[in-house]
Amino acid sequence: MTGAVQITAVAGIPDIAPGDDLAAILGDCLDAAGMALRDGDILCIAHKVFSKAEGCIIDLASVTPSEQARDLAGQLNKDPRKVEVVLGQSRRVVRSFRRPNQDEGTIICEHRLGFISANAAVDESNAGAAGTVITLPDDPDASAGRLGVALEARFGCTIGVVMTDTFGRPWRLGQVNVAIGLHRVPATRPDIGGTDAWGRPLLVTEPAFSDELAAASGLVVQKAAKTPVVLMRGLGWEPAKTTSARDIIRASGEDVFR
Amino acid sequence: MTGAVQITAVAGIPDIAPGDDLAAILGDCLDAAGMALRDGDILCIAHKVFSKAEGCIIDLASVTPSEQARDLAGQLNKDPRKVEVVLGQSRRVVRSFRRPNQDEGTIICEHRLGFISANAAVDESNAGAAGTVITLPDDPDASAGRLGVALEARFGCTIGVVMTDTFGRPWRLGQVNVAIGLHRVPATRPDIGGTDAWGRPLLVTEPAFSDELAAASGLVVQKAAKTPVVLMRGLGWEPAKTTSARDIIRASGEDVFR
Repeated sequence: MTGAVQITAVAGIPDIAPGDDLAAILGDCLDAAGMALRDGDILCIAHKVFSKAEGCIIDLASVTPSEQARDLAGQLNKDPRKVEVVLGQSRRVVRSFRRPNQDEGTIICEHRLGFISANAAVDESNAGAAGTVITLPDDPDASAGRLGVALEARFGCTIGVVMTDTFGRPWRLGQVNVAIGLHRVPATRPDIGGTDAWGRPLLVTEPAFSDELAAASGLVVQKAAKTPVVLMRGLGWEPAKTTSARDIIRASGEDVFR
Repeated sequence: MTGAVQITAVAGIPDIAPGDDLAAILGDCLDAAGMALRDGDILCIAHKVFSKAEGCIIDLASVTPSEQARDLAGQLNKDPRKVEVVLGQSRRVVRSFRRPNQDEGTIICEHRLGFISANAAVDESNAGAAGTVITLPDDPDASAGRLGVALEARFGCTIGVVMTDTFGRPWRLGQVNVAIGLHRVPATRPDIGGTDAWGRPLLVTEPAFSDELAAASGLVVQKAAKTPVVLMRGLGWEPAKTTSARDIIRASGEDVFR
C-alpha cells in the first residue's frame, strides 16, 4: 500500500545484560534482519532493554524495608522489600488499594520522573532472575538519546527513539504502552490555531504523537516472544531539536484528576 | 519490510451527510485507492463519519437550556445550549472546571454509553455548519457492526471495524484516539496465565488491543486533510464472535479513580 506507515518487530533481540552495548546489539539485529535504518525511522523500545543494559536490577535480598514500607505491604499483602523499592522510586503515593478479588494490592505512585503509574513502574516480569525487580533507567531521555545518536552514526541517518513502558489507565481496562523517554520525537504535535477540514478553528488539538507511537508498538510486541524493539517507517514527522518525555506530563495545577 | 503491519489513510473520503450509505461510499473509496479489503484487515474510522451519516447533528437554535445547563454555562463561560446537549448525552458530571487561562471551561462527563471524557464527546469541529454540534451515534457497536457486515459482503472477507473518538487523558497532555465502537475486534487481549519470555507468570497482562489500534490510527489521520478512515493490514488477531467497546470500561467498583 503506497504511503503506508509500516510497523515491524525487530527479530532476534537477545537477552540484554548489564553493561551490554545496546547500539551495537540493536544495530547488528537490524542489519541481520535487512532493516538498516533510514532517515525518519522511529524505534520504539521497551524500557526493560535499557534498564537491563544499565543495570537497573535490584536484588530483593539486598533491600531492607522501612517501617512505612512494612505497614503498606501489610495492608496490601505485598512483599515489603518490593514496596520499599517502589517507595524509593516515587515522589509520593497517589493512592493505594487492594480489592477483594486481588491477591496483592496496587500502589499508584508519582514516579520521581513525574509519571503516574502503578507501582512506580517497578516490574518483576522479564527480570530474568527470581528475587529481582527492574526499575526505570535513571534518565530515560538521556538513555534514548545516547542510543539514538549511536545508531544515527552507524546508519548515517536521522532517526527517532521512543522508550516505552506499559501503563494501565483510569476508567479503561487493559494496558497500553506510553512514551517515557524520547530522542528527537516531539512529545505532542500541537495544532493550536489550525483549522479543521471545513475551516472551523481547532482550539485544542494536540495529538500525543509519542504516546500514539508507543501504543502502536504494542500491536506487534509480544512479551512472550522477546520482541522489545519495533521499527516504524513511513511516518510524516519533523525531528525536534530538543525534546523530553516529561513534556507530556500535565503540570499538577493543570490536572483536575490529581 | 516482511511481516510489517501497514497503516494507511484511505484517500478521497467525501464529506458525509445524513442518510448517506457509508458502506457504499467507503467501499468505492477503497476500490478507487486500490485497497480492496482482505481477510484480517481492520478499519479504524472516526466517529464523526458515522455520526453525520446517522444524522447525529444538533442545531443549537433548536435547543432550550435547562436551569442546570444555564447555571453550569455561567460558571464555565460556555454556551448554555451546548451545555444542555452535553448534559443530555451524560449519565452524570464527573467534574467541571474553568482554569484561569481557559476561555471556556470543561465538563468531564460519564457519557450515557459509559465512556468518561470531556464534554460527553459533543463536538463542534468538523460539524460542517456553524451553530451545530455533533454527538456520538446512538449505539456505536451496532453502527460499526452494520458497516463491517456490509463491507464483508462486498469484499468477500472477514474484517474488523473500530469506531474511534479523540480523548484527553488524566495526567498526560495531548489527545489520543480510543475505541468507542467495535465489530469483531476484541476490546482487550487478556494474557492472564501466560508467561513472559523467561517463563515468569504474567499476572496482569491485558493489552488494550482496540485502543492500541485507535491510537495507531492517529499516526496517519490528519483532521485538516479529511482522512477519517484508516486501513490496518498485517495484524495478528482473532476475530471475536461477540465484542463491544463497552467491555473496555472499568466497572465503577473496580475503578479507584472515579
